[in-house]
Amino acid sequence: MLRTRLDLDRIRAAREVVDPVFLASPLYRCDALGSRLGCTVSIKLETANPVRSFKGRGTELVASRLAEQGAAAVVCASAGNLGQALGWSGRRRGLDVTVVARRLAPAVKLDRIRSFGARLELVDGDFEVARERAVTIARERGVRLVEDSLNIETCEGAATIGLELVGAVSAGDAVLIALGGGAMATGVGHVVRALAPGVEVICVQPLGAPALTLSWRERRVVTTESMDTIADGVAGRFPIPEVLDDLLQVADDAVLVSEASIVTGMRMLLEHAGLVVEPSAALGVAAVLEDPGRFAGRHVVTIICGSNVDLDAYHRWVGR
Amino acid sequence: MLRTRLDLDRIRAAREVVDPVFLASPLYRCDALGSRLGCTVSIKLETANPVRSFKGRGTELVASRLAEQGAAAVVCASAGNLGQALGWSGRRRGLDVTVVARRLAPAVKLDRIRSFGARLELVDGDFEVARERAVTIARERGVRLVEDSLNIETCEGAATIGLELVGAVSAGDAVLIALGGGAMATGVGHVVRALAPGVEVICVQPLGAPALTLSWRERRVVTTESMDTIADGVAGRFPIPEVLDDLLQVADDAVLVSEASIVTGMRMLLEHAGLVVEPSAALGVAAVLEDPGRFAGRHVVTIICGSNVDLDAYHRWVGR
Repeated sequence: MLRTRLDLDRIRAAREVVDPVFLASPLYRCDALGSRLGCTVSIKLETANPVRSFKGRGTELVASRLAEQGAAAVVCASAGNLGQALGWSGRRRGLDVTVVARRLAPAVKLDRIRSFGARLELVDGDFEVARERAVTIARERGVRLVEDSLNIETCEGAATIGLELVGAVSAGDAVLIALGGGAMATGVGHVVRALAPGVEVICVQPLGAPALTLSWRERRVVTTESMDTIADGVAGRFPIPEVLDDLLQVADDAVLVSEASIVTGMRMLLEHAGLVVEPSAALGVAAVLEDPGRFAGRHVVTIICGSNVDLDAYHRWVGR
Repeated sequence: MLRTRLDLDRIRAAREVVDPVFLASPLYRCDALGSRLGCTVSIKLETANPVRSFKGRGTELVASRLAEQGAAAVVCASAGNLGQALGWSGRRRGLDVTVVARRLAPAVKLDRIRSFGARLELVDGDFEVARERAVTIARERGVRLVEDSLNIETCEGAATIGLELVGAVSAGDAVLIALGGGAMATGVGHVVRALAPGVEVICVQPLGAPALTLSWRERRVVTTESMDTIADGVAGRFPIPEVLDDLLQVADDAVLVSEASIVTGMRMLLEHAGLVVEPSAALGVAAVLEDPGRFAGRHVVTIICGSNVDLDAYHRWVGR
């Protein structure tokens, strides 16, 4: 019996709330990529929407709940994608949105947060500093705080991706999920575990930001002193206990990949799938690259979770 | 009264035949691109499928019809995208597929035609030479010939895109459609004209391959001696009379754009929408760039029809 904070009926109901522009994203086999990786690869593409990441699925739930409750303002910390999505969803519901982000977050993410009408506050330091600052703002200004992966709506929104996968996978397949705060992994993992038995749920995190993976392995919260990865979208140091509890229920494995594999994954997604993606979206391909024997001949689904990347950095990494 | 070779009931029925992987493609507003172009831009993304172009919609109809009729083999001429799609659709139905293409077609298109199991015959010269050769092969080998834009299924398949657009457009909006042989323009144009009155149907062709546009303007078939464009997917010299007749019914305008605008369009789609596209897919953006006053403040939908592009050429053009 699967006991997490998630619930299938609520996830199914979420589809009625989320703007359809975020739902039913493309899911298709990419033979050119699969033949290079030695397995059958399906791509679940979460970038073809107004915010270019999967985060809109969750912020639609968050913002519609807040609007129902009569909230006027909301604040979140964001590596960059949640902030864009909350800006998009909040603006349509008349919410005053404040986003706290790292000053060194990709400029394109910061620009787009502003473009969606959100108030942007920048902090020096890493994502955890932004998280603390958002908590302070919520308390001092009396506005609602949205915490990615802790707020259940962020997990339920991501979980709707799972509903769109289960018809296309069967026992023996693997679903590769980028692991950051854990909303996508616990959300999609819950659905796959519940509705597609025998499908392996594999979380993938950078070696340079391994806190939640280490926590999953040790079955207790493990924090890290620092982080060092280009995958800005999944970089955190303080796993949330409730999220770890859920992850322990739904993940078959959590693996760590090198920066070199992430870059090679990005390059392969460009060359063989025609996709420009941000580093976090290449974690699944990186996992296959690092352990080809594990996936040989199998069907793997990789969720391309975002494409908000500074092009100059992209070209520096990918070399073209 | 709209009198073309197309029929709404047949187009609606086509949706039941086409593999769902090609249907319900993403349609979303791209504010970052729109703000640069001075209008509201919606993207209809036809590249997130196994063949990375819209052509699968048509070849699904073609191949399923042929299989029903007991055909064993089929041949087509292709600039590169039809051949991939016919390979994909034909292989799933046990058809022996032959594709005739230019030797100088983008290598990535030729490679993928082969990868989908099709037999590839290369010709020297332009697309019209390939078309003649396909006719000869069909006659000599007694196999069925598929002619893009003339075979009604290729138009009906493309027309299903129109069904997915009409709910999102209203009078005063413009739909920008790349014009090559005319299947997409007549198919989408028929549906938009029939179901979304007041929406402007604008076809866009390169100045370097203007035959069908010149024909539309003169209301008679105009051929050209040669072609010179990077937009290989829409390069033809001999318009098909039946297709021109339909186009005269459904198009409000047909415009020609420069190579420089096509390249700028490709660059803007990369920088502001995160999309790597082939030149033909940038024609819509190019049309806005060349006549910004016409579109200022309006809502335009541009169909991103394909992303099969040689990356080396892409980087040479786009410069990044």
